[in-house]
Amino acid sequence: MSDASSYVTTLTDEQSLELLATKSFGRLVVRRTNDIDLFPLNYLVHNGKILFRTAEGTKLFSLNLNEDVLFEADHVEHTGETSGDAWSVIVKGTARILRDSEEINAADQLPLTPWLPTLKYNYVEITPDEGGISGRKFALGAEPERY
Amino acid sequence: MSDASSYVTTLTDEQSLELLATKSFGRLVVRRTNDIDLFPLNYLVHNGKILFRTAEGTKLFSLNLNEDVLFEADHVEHTGETSGDAWSVIVKGTARILRDSEEINAADQLPLTPWLPTLKYNYVEITPDEGGISGRKFALGAEPERY
Repeated sequence: MSDASSYVTTLTDEQSLELLATKSFGRLVVRRTNDIDLFPLNYLVHNGKILFRTAEGTKLFSLNLNEDVLFEADHVEHTGETSGDAWSVIVKGTARILRDSEEINAADQLPLTPWLPTLKYNYVEITPDEGGISGRKFALGAEPERY
Repeated sequence: MSDASSYVTTLTDEQSLELLATKSFGRLVVRRTNDIDLFPLNYLVHNGKILFRTAEGTKLFSLNLNEDVLFEADHVEHTGETSGDAWSVIVKGTARILRDSEEINAADQLPLTPWLPTLKYNYVEITPDEGGISGRKFALGAEPERY
């Protein structure tokens, strides 16, 4: 009987961040008291942290009320109808809005473009928790016969 | 000044489910008492519900302990360096493991393939909450000049 372990490779934090850096579109999950919300967004990996931008007044901006977040990006590449490679990196971390003008000026120099053509003045930085990075690589394939 | 509203279109439930049905790879967010978890998975839209498979004993399988879930799939299509179209559909709903053999036999007939080549006996069905479907289309573009 097949075992998932032979198709799943656990990545190191370094490998996970490297893969994250190859993409620019991910998903932020924010928890509120009795609810969870997910936001698709453009991001940048910088110094082991995840950086994105958001506009004041948006629902997402209210995450300054709840700093524990989850971020995910993934990639699926099909090489055949049922075969291929994929990865998913999930980061549990703490979000912080950059307030210091020096930090903001430094962030302004980074190639981080927002997803939508609207002005977005706020930078948010996610610092991964200790042990909060979880990256996995998958070898996709057809399901084995049941027996 | 640009307004996000001119670049974002809110979709109806029907439009959202139609877009969801064009993809087969999404992300499930599960809440536990003090934690959230995200699982990438293959899904199928059937009768307005989202169906996926999981193996008993996996972390995901334990979602029978917490039926309130969030599901998301999205699509980004770049037509130029900074232009393109994208959509994201988020479904808040209730997850239920199919236990009835008639339901399971019916699900077995659907073209739902698991992501990994391992045996996955359990079907899980997500029924969207009333008002729990939130779909948006985005017209991507370059950021306007700050002034």
